[in-house]
Amino acid sequence: MPRIAIDAMGGDFGPEPIVNGVLQALKQAEFHAILVGDEDKIRPLIPKKALKNISFEPASDVFDMAEQATEALKRKQSSIYIATELVRENKADALVSAGHSGATMSLATLRIGRLNGVSRPPIATLMPTTKRGKLTLVLDVGANVDCKAEHLFEFAIMGEAYAKEILHINKPRIGLLSNGEEDCKGNEAVKATFSMLKSTPNFIGNVEGNQIFDASVDVIVCDGFVGNILLKTSEGLASSIGKIIKRNIKESALATIAAVFLKRAFKRLKADIDYDEYGGAPLLGVKKCTIISHGKSSPKAIKNAIFQAIKFSNSNINAVIENSLEEYAKLNFQENQ
Amino acid sequence: MPRIAIDAMGGDFGPEPIVNGVLQALKQAEFHAILVGDEDKIRPLIPKKALKNISFEPASDVFDMAEQATEALKRKQSSIYIATELVRENKADALVSAGHSGATMSLATLRIGRLNGVSRPPIATLMPTTKRGKLTLVLDVGANVDCKAEHLFEFAIMGEAYAKEILHINKPRIGLLSNGEEDCKGNEAVKATFSMLKSTPNFIGNVEGNQIFDASVDVIVCDGFVGNILLKTSEGLASSIGKIIKRNIKESALATIAAVFLKRAFKRLKADIDYDEYGGAPLLGVKKCTIISHGKSSPKAIKNAIFQAIKFSNSNINAVIENSLEEYAKLNFQENQ
Repeated sequence: MPRIAIDAMGGDFGPEPIVNGVLQALKQAEFHAILVGDEDKIRPLIPKKALKNISFEPASDVFDMAEQATEALKRKQSSIYIATELVRENKADALVSAGHSGATMSLATLRIGRLNGVSRPPIATLMPTTKRGKLTLVLDVGANVDCKAEHLFEFAIMGEAYAKEILHINKPRIGLLSNGEEDCKGNEAVKATFSMLKSTPNFIGNVEGNQIFDASVDVIVCDGFVGNILLKTSEGLASSIGKIIKRNIKESALATIAAVFLKRAFKRLKADIDYDEYGGAPLLGVKKCTIISHGKSSPKAIKNAIFQAIKFSNSNINAVIENSLEEYAKLNFQENQ
Repeated sequence: MPRIAIDAMGGDFGPEPIVNGVLQALKQAEFHAILVGDEDKIRPLIPKKALKNISFEPASDVFDMAEQATEALKRKQSSIYIATELVRENKADALVSAGHSGATMSLATLRIGRLNGVSRPPIATLMPTTKRGKLTLVLDVGANVDCKAEHLFEFAIMGEAYAKEILHINKPRIGLLSNGEEDCKGNEAVKATFSMLKSTPNFIGNVEGNQIFDASVDVIVCDGFVGNILLKTSEGLASSIGKIIKRNIKESALATIAAVFLKRAFKRLKADIDYDEYGGAPLLGVKKCTIISHGKSSPKAIKNAIFQAIKFSNSNINAVIENSLEEYAKLNFQENQ
């Protein structure tokens, strides 16, 4: 049974949505939750009969969203630091944090440590497509802002391992995000990455932004600057379209009435594209599972983040990443002989 | 009356949608259209009584979408080359092209020439927001893939001039697209651009992807690699949401019936976010107006591209760009003394 350390204090809305998410997850899945934070604040949120498979780990400090990530290493009493240490000391198998994402990344990278062959752990996220149930993995969506080709190449290998081991796609199609599908397109880093990836078996070439959503590719590789922008752009556009639809419907009384009969269709739309359905983004390339959730996560998002952590912990992804990177390093070494 | 040279042959669907767009535009606006291409193919598409304010300029060759932009300079009989030459020779005031966008850019930049102080002309595009009628200008969306801070700075100045002179916004809010709003966020080029822009009066700082759509900023600056990706991502997501809504409605007979009463609301949504409403993207920083349209442009898109060309030709934008760049260059020179 995977043991999951959860920073119960770090989210924007305090411990309540996080604890509620844990309780929802415990009803549906087998795992042990270690809630890290101020027990006096956390315990009252849990009904007595729900205490099975929950333990508490005290932490007197909370790392604030407004602080600099670089300070996180010094704040040894913070809930995120202590949750990370539980994983580092093998007292937990996975970390789930809705706290400061920069702090979570720094701590996971520096305290839990990188896998062999990984230069920079990327954040991966699942994006919805027009094909129900089919998701596209995009990485990096924010951890590494200036990337060289070697980093993007490693992201591709890590994304491939995620698609194989967690999404159970046998031959995942790996695409490199660029400003055109043609082989010659890209900025300098992307063009150099293309040359490195073109001999890997699952690489399908450059892909464009619209392919995130059309189910034509399983893994999309980009740097963390571009990935963050496309994620925020997508979230912003989806929410704007929702607002425009509502406004346009309200402009007509007839449409307002008719819309009642469409509630289910719109609800499904929300479920089809809702972030809460995935709940968190794994930081790949660190020695243990780390799931980073939005600060504003709902209980449902936290529940799904925990499900991701369970799947990750029960998988072989990290061994696959290390083996793949080692093999490519060997190949590269031979080619250069 | 502005004289507009239109590449009648370059679009993906041949001359028909382009000529129809010109005819629609002529019904609503005062301009003279110079249709460049194979007169035998173009003239039959025009009713005799509509020939007023249309002239023809023969071109025996068409530059194909699959060709390399670098070849465009050699293809002196192509419709896009000849249309550009009309502008260069002052026989036309503006160029509208739905042909090969790389070729259009190269020819406009090299044959019509850059404004004083402009290193690299960017493509600017208008994006819809949740506030009806309010648009956000985003630049560069594809002309310049690897940009230095000086280039991004110039884009900001050109975008500001566009917002003032064409959109008639007195004090346009200029934002720098980044992976976070905080001053410290950005990749190396963005951080360096931030330092250059921070003393300019209308700069509001870093903005995030979602701010494209929320009407909180008038001009958003990014490099052409990021801009192309965010444009394609937005187009892809908007079309995917449309498909998902349709699918979800079809899953219920009741919803299918009710949806009939929502047709107008959805039609307005389409109008609110539809590319055809803007029709083309100006290439800023060249000596004459150049509007680049999609290869797949509908007649409506071409019509709106022509309206953009008219507004541009009737404005002072190019003088404002040259003056602003000159003043900032002087300031910079003084600071460095």
